[in-house]
Amino acid sequence: MKRDFLAMEEWSPEAIDGLLALAARCKRGELLGGLERKVLAMIFLDPSLRTRSSMETAMFLHGGHALALEPGKGSWAMETELDVVMDGTTVEHIIEAARVLSRYADALAVRSFPKGTDWGVERLDPTIRNFARFADKPVINLESARRHPCQGLADAMTMREHLGETVGKRFVLSWAWHPKALPTAVPASAAIAAAHLGMEVTIARPDGYDLDSEDYLAIETLATARGGSLHITDDLDGAIEGAHVVYPKSWGALTHFGRPEEERAGREGKRDWRLTQERMRSTAAGRGIAMHCLPVRRNVEVDGEVLDGPNSAVIDQAENRLHAQRALLLELIGNR
Amino acid sequence: MKRDFLAMEEWSPEAIDGLLALAARCKRGELLGGLERKVLAMIFLDPSLRTRSSMETAMFLHGGHALALEPGKGSWAMETELDVVMDGTTVEHIIEAARVLSRYADALAVRSFPKGTDWGVERLDPTIRNFARFADKPVINLESARRHPCQGLADAMTMREHLGETVGKRFVLSWAWHPKALPTAVPASAAIAAAHLGMEVTIARPDGYDLDSEDYLAIETLATARGGSLHITDDLDGAIEGAHVVYPKSWGALTHFGRPEEERAGREGKRDWRLTQERMRSTAAGRGIAMHCLPVRRNVEVDGEVLDGPNSAVIDQAENRLHAQRALLLELIGNR
Amino acid sequence: MKRDFLAMEEWSPEAIDGLLALAARCKRGELLGGLERKVLAMIFLDPSLRTRSSMETAMFLHGGHALALEPGKGSWAMETELDVVMDGTTVEHIIEAARVLSRYADALAVRSFPKGTDWGVERLDPTIRNFARFADKPVINLESARRHPCQGLADAMTMREHLGETVGKRFVLSWAWHPKALPTAVPASAAIAAAHLGMEVTIARPDGYDLDSEDYLAIETLATARGGSLHITDDLDGAIEGAHVVYPKSWGALTHFGRPEEERAGREGKRDWRLTQERMRSTAAGRGIAMHCLPVRRNVEVDGEVLDGPNSAVIDQAENRLHAQRALLLELIGNR
Repeated sequence: MKRDFLAMEEWSPEAIDGLLALAARCKRGELLGGLERKVLAMIFLDPSLRTRSSMETAMFLHGGHALALEPGKGSWAMETELDVVMDGTTVEHIIEAARVLSRYADALAVRSFPKGTDWGVERLDPTIRNFARFADKPVINLESARRHPCQGLADAMTMREHLGETVGKRFVLSWAWHPKALPTAVPASAAIAAAHLGMEVTIARPDGYDLDSEDYLAIETLATARGGSLHITDDLDGAIEGAHVVYPKSWGALTHFGRPEEERAGREGKRDWRLTQERMRSTAAGRGIAMHCLPVRRNVEVDGEVLDGPNSAVIDQAENRLHAQRALLLELIGNR
Repeated sequence: MKRDFLAMEEWSPEAIDGLLALAARCKRGELLGGLERKVLAMIFLDPSLRTRSSMETAMFLHGGHALALEPGKGSWAMETELDVVMDGTTVEHIIEAARVLSRYADALAVRSFPKGTDWGVERLDPTIRNFARFADKPVINLESARRHPCQGLADAMTMREHLGETVGKRFVLSWAWHPKALPTAVPASAAIAAAHLGMEVTIARPDGYDLDSEDYLAIETLATARGGSLHITDDLDGAIEGAHVVYPKSWGALTHFGRPEEERAGREGKRDWRLTQERMRSTAAGRGIAMHCLPVRRNVEVDGEVLDGPNSAVIDQAENRLHAQRALLLELIGNR
Repeated sequence: MKRDFLAMEEWSPEAIDGLLALAARCKRGELLGGLERKVLAMIFLDPSLRTRSSMETAMFLHGGHALALEPGKGSWAMETELDVVMDGTTVEHIIEAARVLSRYADALAVRSFPKGTDWGVERLDPTIRNFARFADKPVINLESARRHPCQGLADAMTMREHLGETVGKRFVLSWAWHPKALPTAVPASAAIAAAHLGMEVTIARPDGYDLDSEDYLAIETLATARGGSLHITDDLDGAIEGAHVVYPKSWGALTHFGRPEEERAGREGKRDWRLTQERMRSTAAGRGIAMHCLPVRRNVEVDGEVLDGPNSAVIDQAENRLHAQRALLLELIGNR
């Protein structure tokens, strides 16, 4: 009967609204304690600043404790494939890791980026799904190959704070140039968050930079059910005009997944896909907000003057990671 | 008057039985608090998942805090030899590290694997012994070149849970093939744990894979005193037949210690030294338990179906690390 | 109105004396609690043992929690220059890191050694200054290019404990040979601590190993105001004769900063700049104390018999890091 948090759209919209309301109460300081003697085991297969800091702080503020494990650095290199003869370099199988940590901790949290080899495999999100399968305790996704639902929660919370009523307002996910081919988990999760809020979601990206078709389906289904919509375009300036939220984000072309040289070549000449102050001036009443999950490449994805300007919501967004996760942890493992 | 925990056989059998009883009470949830305002400083010269997680959780559950230091990564590269002119690459001497941490913490815990150069030196277990010598506070061995006594405690606790009365029951430590030459600390400590329980200890290993003669002596002396015995054999199948516990574990040939190429050559052709389901069927009433300290190479040391099957005790064993260490910490530094 | 702790001489002498008095009360066990629900975010751009352990312990002992982030290892590689197009290898800008962590934590603490390229830039201490500029919460310097004020506090506390009245007593900062060119933050901070205590400060160093002229000015100004003085000499033995405190410490020649080969050549032949037992015998009544910030290269900077002898204050000094930082944290973010 354990409940995992692997993707926002796998929880009912009512449950998500409940989390967001609880998060707002946490932020207002209305909830103390609730996680006494509770342990969260975090497994970072990839680096983190906000996620680790906000999770560790969330547990501490309510009386609990978060362990941070970094396989391959301080702990053993981890095998994530199931039926394997482990005579290579990996030392610990996630089956044992998930089962053992379930004996020490009240919940597990896992960060595991895609490995960049085969999208046909990665799109099944095998690492986080297998952790959830073999763990006896709730598993929280701290960004997998496909989803970053804690970021999505914080994004939804931030948009409600800044916009008030969100239904029908315009959300633009705008592809951005970046020196590396980044994963699609954050852009998919941000668009799902906007869909949850019933917004008119526009994804502006160059041809060839579509998210996975399953992501589009999830976004469109949820948006429609909540009073919003989904549009895809390659007209960046047209999309931003009149937007209430602009969410610049880079991701690599899934069509070239696992072929980095080819993918890199496709990104050449797209440096103008960048959120500038001039573009921000064309948003709704010139007061649309700029969002980003961070870390952000300054003056590459977003200009410094946008990040530092009055319409930037990026720091609020990062702060809301903390409150959203406090709510999530209280919901999943809180003492009643 | 400080008391260290460096090797199980250095504590009296009565003291060990006391720890095991306390650990069982911890597991039943009968003991809260006891480590308020206490700090454990853990020094990991080698990687860890269970040890770090279970120690950190143990301290937290009773109100204390565990620091995890990783010399050479987050903290300074550490010199472990005593009379040395430090004009090379090491930056901090363990003499200062032990003394300084004794001022911050109530106990120290150290993991330090053998360096693989000279068994004549390593068999004196110099790193952990020197930490204990220079620390003013109790030192806990989190696996040294020679011993892993916290694992031994958990092993003893697990066998008592699964077998009830243990005197005269059959414990088999079965050497296993592995791509690397592993240390002998765990197999020695597991056999000492079984000896403590008065079991009939059989060590099944290929010729040339004997544990240190001092280990054999420690195991035999303790086993005999407690109503058990020690047998050494190279007949793996014969040993497992009728066993109550099978503990597969790989270790490198001490006779080739420090000569890895030669040692590796000796391991060729021994891949059949593996715990299979078929072998498990020949245990006592087909219900002998399989144990392993973890991490385990699936389908190399032990078949996946054994690890995942009903007779596997490996996850209980890992859980018991937590409870055994809670007892140890309460005993060594608990508030009375 | 936030208050940072970046350099000891930037706080009033009265405020520093207040901290030292509070630290002494912490050490005597007179102060419990005060940091409940408080979080300190520590960013280690360079390694640490004492600093991390003592900070983490300080927060815990008073009910708070310290996060340890290691950019480039567990967290994102950090950009410290301000106006930069981030299309290289750094992933997270300190502007965002400082702002985001200010939302999670009640104070930030940063360790950032000089990069060894251009002293003209480093002497402005840009990394710690920019963290302080962009953070909304107090920033504590855990050793920057120029200062290590937490070490300085502990040094001052230790000298008061060992010497009682300090005004007019003789403090010798003695340059020592070391295989690497070390930063000047610790020697400058130690001399400032002695200056704060009104001591007669002598800096014994070979020609060409002067501290930054700004450091000399800060030391002399403070020493004079507090009843002491500053002398510079290249006569090591003459300086140590009659000294109450000898503080051996290595640092690289600033005149060759950024040119390591040239700097190394200049250090050749200076191995005799080492604190020996014989030199200690010439101190005041043969009972002057030996200090060092640690880690220390045994038998390179200081002989083992000095470190292990009765006049060594190095372990007290390390312990006092804990108490000085408890006082600092209570002062900056303590619940009143």
